[in-house]
Amino acid sequence: MLADTGFFGSLFELKGYDQPVLVSSTDGVGTKLKIASALGKHDTVGIDLVNHCVNDIFTCGAEPLFFLDYIAMGRLDPAKVESIVSGMAAACREVNCALIGGETAEMPGIYSGEDYDLAGFIVGVVEKGRRLDQQQIKAGDTILALPSSGLHTNGYSLARKVFGEEPSALKAFPPELGRSLGEALLEPHRCYYNLVRPVLKLVKGLAHITGGGFEGNIPRVLPPGLAARLDRSSWDVPPIFTLIQEKGGIADAEMYRVFNMGVGMVIICSPQDAAQIMKSIPEAQQSGRVVEQQGAQRVIIS
Amino acid sequence: MLADTGFFGSLFELKGYDQPVLVSSTDGVGTKLKIASALGKHDTVGIDLVNHCVNDIFTCGAEPLFFLDYIAMGRLDPAKVESIVSGMAAACREVNCALIGGETAEMPGIYSGEDYDLAGFIVGVVEKGRRLDQQQIKAGDTILALPSSGLHTNGYSLARKVFGEEPSALKAFPPELGRSLGEALLEPHRCYYNLVRPVLKLVKGLAHITGGGFEGNIPRVLPPGLAARLDRSSWDVPPIFTLIQEKGGIADAEMYRVFNMGVGMVIICSPQDAAQIMKSIPEAQQSGRVVEQQGAQRVIIS
Repeated sequence: MLADTGFFGSLFELKGYDQPVLVSSTDGVGTKLKIASALGKHDTVGIDLVNHCVNDIFTCGAEPLFFLDYIAMGRLDPAKVESIVSGMAAACREVNCALIGGETAEMPGIYSGEDYDLAGFIVGVVEKGRRLDQQQIKAGDTILALPSSGLHTNGYSLARKVFGEEPSALKAFPPELGRSLGEALLEPHRCYYNLVRPVLKLVKGLAHITGGGFEGNIPRVLPPGLAARLDRSSWDVPPIFTLIQEKGGIADAEMYRVFNMGVGMVIICSPQDAAQIMKSIPEAQQSGRVVEQQGAQRVIIS
Repeated sequence: MLADTGFFGSLFELKGYDQPVLVSSTDGVGTKLKIASALGKHDTVGIDLVNHCVNDIFTCGAEPLFFLDYIAMGRLDPAKVESIVSGMAAACREVNCALIGGETAEMPGIYSGEDYDLAGFIVGVVEKGRRLDQQQIKAGDTILALPSSGLHTNGYSLARKVFGEEPSALKAFPPELGRSLGEALLEPHRCYYNLVRPVLKLVKGLAHITGGGFEGNIPRVLPPGLAARLDRSSWDVPPIFTLIQEKGGIADAEMYRVFNMGVGMVIICSPQDAAQIMKSIPEAQQSGRVVEQQGAQRVIIS
């Protein structure tokens, strides 16, 4: 085991890299925590947190090394903490990441009732020469979409506004969801690491579709002067998004700005490599291509 | 500059180490945040956070590499965020640590009014052969105490109970403090890295006196079977602690369990090296020695 516990810090021996670049990220789960509290189910928010962080550093081509968590609540509730940590531990195991340390803070006067907050911190590593960067991406490259499992960890403030904050609303059972609204909203953030890693050598760019949707995230991996053209009919928008849109009377543009709309990660690759990637990842959908930028828009969905 | 910003992660190229051991830690500021909010002064809690984290990993002998922060509030207040970050940036600069990334989360319904939370994550590195561990510590070793600047980041829930939660109480001006109670309570957590680093080769062990006081922290660096014997008259207990103790009618044992009582870090070294360390750090006080453990107690203060 590489990971160890120090006196006040957590230790991780870094072995086997020539020119290691450490890639780190921190994130929270946002107000998805409110859904977990309303349902009294806390064993999945840790999965959300780890998977969000793993996906983030994976966009640089990094493999996860270790993870630390920060949990804060008004009064320590050991059963709740254990449940939260169990989710983190399971998600870390999935990607061989060491859950190496953490802090649990009791903060009366800041958190009230059932409320708590949760932040995660991940460190991964990539060989300098294998880092994914914008350099290789060209006009004509193919864009593949990987399905999301639901809202992941974004758009919950809007979703809660649409459905109301009463726990009873979450018990509704819209037939198109095949499960309760609460269950659908709490569905864990999907991790793309194990799915994409086997074909990583064929990948030129990865965008994690989080807050800001396509527009907020795809341009981050494109070189200046290039844009993404996406064909909206190429992927399925899951029913949870349609339900939110209809009930809230929300315009398409706002939906695409707030939510992932069914696409959790986007792969950019050479057209000649697309078939091999799709063979390895059958659920990857050929959804567009990289084009020369014309005008201000860097993501064109049509 | 080694540090860089990736697409979704932050990058740090690790150079110049033979057998690097990464040392990481996460922490918060606890309810000291409530004092900051009551005083409307947010530029020091970031210093607290960074210094706490730097001290923690320094107990393994690690030098800080990079730091990430998580800030969460009910409604984003850019001026407040900027103020918080300015403190973190200043403290990171002091120890040549890269403030490499962070997440600012808006979480209506979890944080109310002026409340917010703050967590920090640090990664440092130490050569495997230079890691401080318990192995070299022996009975007869000298214990040096380094003064704290105040409560640092521990004991605020008790302090707030003693003084009450009204902002007006913080405006009191007890003559022994030479400043307002609020200012004394908000005094930043001291960083010991630059102070101790020049003599690190002479140091066998470092304990960061945080939550749990002497008893909670010194034994973490002692090998099994050894204890610390401390002479209470060897360091000054700052007036803020005396004030809390008198006003709250708190027993000595509880004070020493909750607060640092004027000692923020403890150095363990060979008796023959103590003089040279004290020459480099004139404020270090010879305060005790490592002894064979007799009975259950591992810290004896007399």
